[in-house]
Amino acid sequence: MKNLNKFNTIPEPTLRRLSYYVVYLQKLLDAGIETVSSTQIANNLMFDPTQVRKDLQLTEISGHPKIGFNIKTTLESIKSSLNWNNIENAFLVGVGNLGNAVLNFSLLKYMGVNIVAAFDNNPEKIGNIVNNVEILDIERLPELSKLMKVNIGIIAVPEHAAQETADKFVAGGIKAIWNLLPCRLKVPDEIIIEEANLMQSLAVLTNQLAK
Amino acid sequence: MKNLNKFNTIPEPTLRRLSYYVVYLQKLLDAGIETVSSTQIANNLMFDPTQVRKDLQLTEISGHPKIGFNIKTTLESIKSSLNWNNIENAFLVGVGNLGNAVLNFSLLKYMGVNIVAAFDNNPEKIGNIVNNVEILDIERLPELSKLMKVNIGIIAVPEHAAQETADKFVAGGIKAIWNLLPCRLKVPDEIIIEEANLMQSLAVLTNQLAK
Repeated sequence: MKNLNKFNTIPEPTLRRLSYYVVYLQKLLDAGIETVSSTQIANNLMFDPTQVRKDLQLTEISGHPKIGFNIKTTLESIKSSLNWNNIENAFLVGVGNLGNAVLNFSLLKYMGVNIVAAFDNNPEKIGNIVNNVEILDIERLPELSKLMKVNIGIIAVPEHAAQETADKFVAGGIKAIWNLLPCRLKVPDEIIIEEANLMQSLAVLTNQLAK
Repeated sequence: MKNLNKFNTIPEPTLRRLSYYVVYLQKLLDAGIETVSSTQIANNLMFDPTQVRKDLQLTEISGHPKIGFNIKTTLESIKSSLNWNNIENAFLVGVGNLGNAVLNFSLLKYMGVNIVAAFDNNPEKIGNIVNNVEILDIERLPELSKLMKVNIGIIAVPEHAAQETADKFVAGGIKAIWNLLPCRLKVPDEIIIEEANLMQSLAVLTNQLAK
């Protein structure tokens, strides 16, 4: 079933929109609805209908004229394109406001990301449980990286500790780093880095506001 | 000095990179350094040098052969392109983990965004001060929107309250909404929406990991 070409050919803006489709289609499915049209998806999510049709084509799903898309198979196809039907284990480092927001992020369960442990260096936080995830001493990260099959490392530490955390993840064999801080990280070429920080996004907003 | 064309012609990926340049150049300036080459910027931030030169051209700044870029004027030019040299007042609604992360975001001061008040509906939070910002009763949002000159509304509430918050912002005359939740908002066409949510970013990461 795994089609590597499919993963390669979906552009980033489509991937971002597809994540919304998953949430919407899951809601419809939970409500017992079986089919949906691309126009309905577009109207509900306020996207352009032509755009929605193009996006769905990229996930290799096709609708039936007058009937629309079967929600169950469409959802599976989109999740497969996003790799959300595989469970990937993740470590999170830094249990401050940002780390807590990620640990409590309710949609994470749809995304195939399973945070198996969180780490902090604050003795007051170590041993606490946040949303079923235990907070462990950061010193244990190298040891546990080798023991557990963890592909994703999430960095939510204060900025000055970000590179050090990335180095620990790389040494522990993690394949992808999700960096929530407004700083750039130096990692080997084969490591995937995805940056999700407030600064970048605010730059887009403030520029738009000036127009 | 204000050049409206400049705001229009800078593509989003460039805006995102420019935000990193601001932080780096500010550090150099604080250290008393006066000039920098595009290669230095590229090496430090791990961007492609050609890309950096193109990005800087878009902000209408030019370097001097062998001397490089004057840091002070380059910083001003980039900040002007991002509209970070104008102070924009902002309201934040929802002082949970995400809201606290924004209120404590130390780089906000470089970005010309001044959070003048935060709002919540939890009586235990109302009256508290987070990073010099007072938390007010959400009921006061409409009244205060009209009194204070606020252009940016930041939404960090639980998802089910996001649309309601957006409606309040629109009614209060806010021009741009920064939506930190993984949901789409219905607002009039003239309102700027910038989405910065964990879900979208994770969709890009998990897809990359599958390749």
